[in-house]
Amino acid sequence: MSLLVTGTIGIDDVVTPTGHANQVLGGSCMYFSAASSFYGPVRIVAVVGEDFPPKFRESFSQFPGVDLAGLETRKGGKTFRWGCKYHTNMNSRDTLFTELGVVGEAPAKVPASYADSKFLFLANSPPAVQAGFIEQCPKRVLTVADTMDLWIQVAKDDLLALLKRVDGLVLNYDEAELLTGKMNSVSAGRHILELGPRFVIIKKGEHGCLLIHKDGICSLPAYPTERVIDPTGCGDTFAGGVMGFLASHKAADHDPGSFQSIRRALAHGTVVASFTIEAFSLDRLKEIKRADLDARFEEYASMVRV
Amino acid sequence: MSLLVTGTIGIDDVVTPTGHANQVLGGSCMYFSAASSFYGPVRIVAVVGEDFPPKFRESFSQFPGVDLAGLETRKGGKTFRWGCKYHTNMNSRDTLFTELGVVGEAPAKVPASYADSKFLFLANSPPAVQAGFIEQCPKRVLTVADTMDLWIQVAKDDLLALLKRVDGLVLNYDEAELLTGKMNSVSAGRHILELGPRFVIIKKGEHGCLLIHKDGICSLPAYPTERVIDPTGCGDTFAGGVMGFLASHKAADHDPGSFQSIRRALAHGTVVASFTIEAFSLDRLKEIKRADLDARFEEYASMVRV
Repeated sequence: MSLLVTGTIGIDDVVTPTGHANQVLGGSCMYFSAASSFYGPVRIVAVVGEDFPPKFRESFSQFPGVDLAGLETRKGGKTFRWGCKYHTNMNSRDTLFTELGVVGEAPAKVPASYADSKFLFLANSPPAVQAGFIEQCPKRVLTVADTMDLWIQVAKDDLLALLKRVDGLVLNYDEAELLTGKMNSVSAGRHILELGPRFVIIKKGEHGCLLIHKDGICSLPAYPTERVIDPTGCGDTFAGGVMGFLASHKAADHDPGSFQSIRRALAHGTVVASFTIEAFSLDRLKEIKRADLDARFEEYASMVRV
Repeated sequence: MSLLVTGTIGIDDVVTPTGHANQVLGGSCMYFSAASSFYGPVRIVAVVGEDFPPKFRESFSQFPGVDLAGLETRKGGKTFRWGCKYHTNMNSRDTLFTELGVVGEAPAKVPASYADSKFLFLANSPPAVQAGFIEQCPKRVLTVADTMDLWIQVAKDDLLALLKRVDGLVLNYDEAELLTGKMNSVSAGRHILELGPRFVIIKKGEHGCLLIHKDGICSLPAYPTERVIDPTGCGDTFAGGVMGFLASHKAADHDPGSFQSIRRALAHGTVVASFTIEAFSLDRLKEIKRADLDARFEEYASMVRV
């Protein structure tokens, strides 16, 4: 079924303890769509500036499932740019700069050809902008949003309004604590369910993820790896794997938001993210095929089996 | 098969964000043996002072599997005492005081009746003392040691010598980093295997555990719980569940140190520890039966299933 993602496409500068990458392709929409394209077609709604390099545009062709009809190139606009430096343990980072460019202007519009989209992923954006995208997708059957500490701090009312309109929320461990005031991730997750969503996925980086769903709890570790090169985009590719898997299910009576569906999807998200971290930018995802994901999925499943 | 544990039995003062417990029964040997007694008999080798309260001695009767023949009460000696205060998130703590008492003197001896012990768990002690216990158990088939940052810092040579004589090592995430200089837990675990053990279990508290074994890797999350009252003893009861499960296996051709054996055992350790954290001291373990462990094991297995 049709999957649509809204978010950023940008140019990143990333410094890690093992190296650096300058002026590389990034952004939540880019990472998400590359990951979900392993499972099926994905429609992107994003905006870049006139300065968006042709070589990056060509990069999309390496992920043939990504539909670019909703990619706006804004005349006279500047592409979103972001720089960060990871700390020694790779679990935290400092943002070095953020140049919003076109991302700070009016959001892209959902093209008419996308209005029948069934699966909607709202990558991190101001909650009011995310709500605007929901309006433009009247045929949606599963809507999931990401958010960040900034919106919890400066746009909490908008975020609370958004939570009443989504099926699921994806956010980091510390963001769940910040949103709810609960220091325990199970308690924080349960609290978020009271705010509206049917499920919340709490991301814990190298420690995996926790699903708190109205119908159950699931906890999964990350794929244990030594090849940690650049964690940028892991959260977005995790979400891309989750939503890509959910949208690719064929059964007509399938409830994509059920506990069993989301639980199964988490493992796929975990596996895609485990490839993302093995190189800078999208470099590792460009190298792999669906068969590589499937092989690691089997390996992962055996690693976490009780 | 016969399981023996060496370690401390002491009196703890514990402060957590939700409450406090003064002068309660504690110590690694106490926690380990209580946990492993759900699986079968366990022999303890430990020493307390003449001041060890009779009410604590009576507590042992609530764990009928614990064999006290190796519990020495040293005349004129003082029982080990330890106090700690947990930080707000319960993931870290400050030690408030440590009064070694008899634990700082000559270690207890393994009684002659224990010399045929097959399974040996060396809870945290000076590595040279741990090595001394190995000598006293010539019939051992599986020897596993715990350690801590202090010994890595002040007795590293002794610890490295010990590692050549054990089948497995259990330690915390940050201790594995300290021992190996590796910031990645998989890399740290592989490095430790080069030092001698056939497997290493890296404990990550609320984030579960990682097994690095010569024959494979396994990662398990902790049991997701909201009832976090006191984490004291979780690591020791985890180890007690692991070793208790391994020692209770009946098959004659069973290799208790194999990847599959240890992997299965980890889930049992995880489940016992999840009860420990629900109350101060051993209070929760005193309330439950093996059937409670088994029921939560099934629940846990369903929560982590991929």
